[in-house]
Amino acid sequence: MGDQTTTHQIAAPYLLFLGDARDDLAAKTARGIYEWRPELCIGQHRLPGCATKLPIPEMTYHEAVEAGAKTVIIGTASAGGMIGMHWEDDLLEAIEAGLDLASGLHMKLSDDPRLRARAEHLGRRLHDVRHPVGTVPVGKGTKRSGKRLLTVGTDCSLGKMFTSLSLEREMHKRGLMADFRATGQTGIFIAGCGICVDAVVADFISGAAELLSPDNEPEHWDIIEGQGSIFHPSFAGVSLGLLHGSQPDAIVVCHEPGRSHMRGLPGWKLPSIQDCVDQNLRAAALTNPNVRCVGISLNTKKMDKKAALDEIKRTEDDFGLPCVDPSVTGVGALVDKLQTL
Amino acid sequence: MGDQTTTHQIAAPYLLFLGDARDDLAAKTARGIYEWRPELCIGQHRLPGCATKLPIPEMTYHEAVEAGAKTVIIGTASAGGMIGMHWEDDLLEAIEAGLDLASGLHMKLSDDPRLRARAEHLGRRLHDVRHPVGTVPVGKGTKRSGKRLLTVGTDCSLGKMFTSLSLEREMHKRGLMADFRATGQTGIFIAGCGICVDAVVADFISGAAELLSPDNEPEHWDIIEGQGSIFHPSFAGVSLGLLHGSQPDAIVVCHEPGRSHMRGLPGWKLPSIQDCVDQNLRAAALTNPNVRCVGISLNTKKMDKKAALDEIKRTEDDFGLPCVDPSVTGVGALVDKLQTL
Repeated sequence: MGDQTTTHQIAAPYLLFLGDARDDLAAKTARGIYEWRPELCIGQHRLPGCATKLPIPEMTYHEAVEAGAKTVIIGTASAGGMIGMHWEDDLLEAIEAGLDLASGLHMKLSDDPRLRARAEHLGRRLHDVRHPVGTVPVGKGTKRSGKRLLTVGTDCSLGKMFTSLSLEREMHKRGLMADFRATGQTGIFIAGCGICVDAVVADFISGAAELLSPDNEPEHWDIIEGQGSIFHPSFAGVSLGLLHGSQPDAIVVCHEPGRSHMRGLPGWKLPSIQDCVDQNLRAAALTNPNVRCVGISLNTKKMDKKAALDEIKRTEDDFGLPCVDPSVTGVGALVDKLQTL
Repeated sequence: MGDQTTTHQIAAPYLLFLGDARDDLAAKTARGIYEWRPELCIGQHRLPGCATKLPIPEMTYHEAVEAGAKTVIIGTASAGGMIGMHWEDDLLEAIEAGLDLASGLHMKLSDDPRLRARAEHLGRRLHDVRHPVGTVPVGKGTKRSGKRLLTVGTDCSLGKMFTSLSLEREMHKRGLMADFRATGQTGIFIAGCGICVDAVVADFISGAAELLSPDNEPEHWDIIEGQGSIFHPSFAGVSLGLLHGSQPDAIVVCHEPGRSHMRGLPGWKLPSIQDCVDQNLRAAALTNPNVRCVGISLNTKKMDKKAALDEIKRTEDDFGLPCVDPSVTGVGALVDKLQTL
C-alpha cells in the first residue's frame, strides 16, 4: 500500500498491551483490534491493577516472542493520549525481549529517551501511528484504476470505521476483492498499515488519501475509513481533503439517529441525512464526477430493536437507498448495491 | 493577536535579505513586504551576484543594528524552499551583530546547527514562519465579537493577499478599524504576526483560523487572507477549515479571467465565479448563517486596460455586486458595500 516510506507498516502478529486499564472502555483500542483481527492477536499483556481482560492468553514478553509475536500494541486510550510513565520499565523489557512497539497515542514512544535509545541500539521499531513518517506528497487529483468506497458521516464517532470493516468482511465472504484502508489509529493497527489523515500537515491531506488507495485491479474495491464530517466546524477540512483524495466511486453515509449535538459541541445540531448526501456528493464530484451514494448506515445502539428496525425501514423508504445497521442487519444490502455498479 | 505562544511575533523594523537572488521574482517576498510596509523596511542586504535591488539603503548587519533594525527577513523564494548553504556564514554575522532572523522557506533556520547554537547562546530568535510554534487548539465554532471578511478564490495564487491588503489600506484611509490577518508567509512578514494555516496539523486548521481573528470591537473588521480554493483538489481542506474558523460576515471572491487551468494541475478547469460564490456561502453558513458575498475581485494583469475594464463592468452587471481589480480600480466599491452592512 502506497510508498512504504510514508505509511506505518506494523509487523504482525501482535501482543496487546492493556497496561493498568481501569475498565473495558480504557482498552477500547485493544478490543477493536481483537474484534476485527483476532487472528493477529496472539496474547495480551496486563499490568497489576488492570481491570479488563480479553479472551486470549496472558503472556510475558519472552513468552510472546516464543509464540511468534512481532509487535506490542499499546491497546489503551488514556485521557489526553499520554503514555503512563510507570510503563517505561515494562516496555523496555519488551524491546529487550525482541519486540517492536506501536502506539496510537498523542505522546510519542520515540520521545522517550530510554525507549528510543534501546530501540535504536537493538534495531527495534517504534511506531507512533498518530505521527506520519516520511514525506507525504501534495495531492494531484489524477484518476486511479480500481474502485473506491468512502464512508462519510453527519458527525464524528458514529460508526464509519465499523461500517467500513463490516463492508470489507462481507465482500471477502462473497469472494470480492476488497481492502480496508485505515485513516485513524485503531484502523491502522487492524489493517497493519495506514496514515492518520488528521495528523498530517494541512497541505497534504488529499495527498495522504491518494497514497492510501493507489492504482489497483479494475474490479478491486478500496473501502476507505472516513474521518469526521464536512459539517463539523472543528474538523471539516480533514473530511474534505479525504473526500477529494479518495476520489470515491461510492459513498456510504453514516448517522446516529437521535444524537443531540455535534460531538464536543453542545448546541450544534447535526445536518440532515439528505444534506449530508447532497453536500458530500457535490464536493466529491470535483475528483470523481461519477460518484454516487450507495446507501446509509445507521448506528442504532441506543434504540431498542423494534425502534431500530422501524428507523432503518423508514430511512430506506425515504431515500430509496439501502439502509443498514451493521450490528443489526449486517451490510449485505449495501454490498448487493455495490455489486450492481 | 491570539495567544502569543502560538503565533509568530516578529520584531520590526526589518533588514531585507536578498541573498544572491537571480532576478526580481526570486526576491518576491522582499518586494511584497516593501510594497505593503515600506515603513518597516530600513534597509536591504545583498550578497555578491545579487541581480535585484530595492530603492532602500544597502546595509551591513552592523549598520542595520545602528539604524534600529531588529530582524533580518529572508526575502527570497528559492526553488524547493531551501536556504542557501553558502548563506550560513553571512547569517551567522547577523546573529552576532544582534539581529533576529525570520524565514518563510520550507527548510528551517532552526535546523541549521550552527545558526541555532549561536542564536540560543546570544538570545536571538529564529522565526520559521512556515512552521507553527506552540500548541494550536481544536476549533470550537464559538461566535466571536467584531466583524470578519475573508477573501476566497476560484484557485490558488490569484490575488487573495493583494485584495486583503488593499482592503485594509482603503479602510484605514477612511478611518475604519481594520486589521489584515496573515495566513501565509509573506503576509506574516507584512503583518508582523500570523499563522501559516496550510502548515498546521490537519486537525487544527479551523482552530488556527479562530486564533488569528479573536474577539474584537463590534465595529472592527478583521480582513483575513484567504488560502487556496475549496475547488482545488490538492488544498481544499485548508480552504474549508479556514472558512469555518474565520466565520466570516463577508466574503470577497477572487478570480483571474482567462486562467486556463487550476494551478499546478494542467487539464483541471476552474469553477465558475457563480459556483465559487454559492459553494463558499453554503459552507461558510455552518459557522455564520449571516455570511454574504460583498463583491468580486478580478486579477486582470494579463489583459489590456480596455478589456479589463469591460470584464469588470460585465462581471458587476452579471452578479449585481461590486467588482474591482485592486490594481486598476482600487477597492473603494467593496468598502462602500462593507459600510452598508
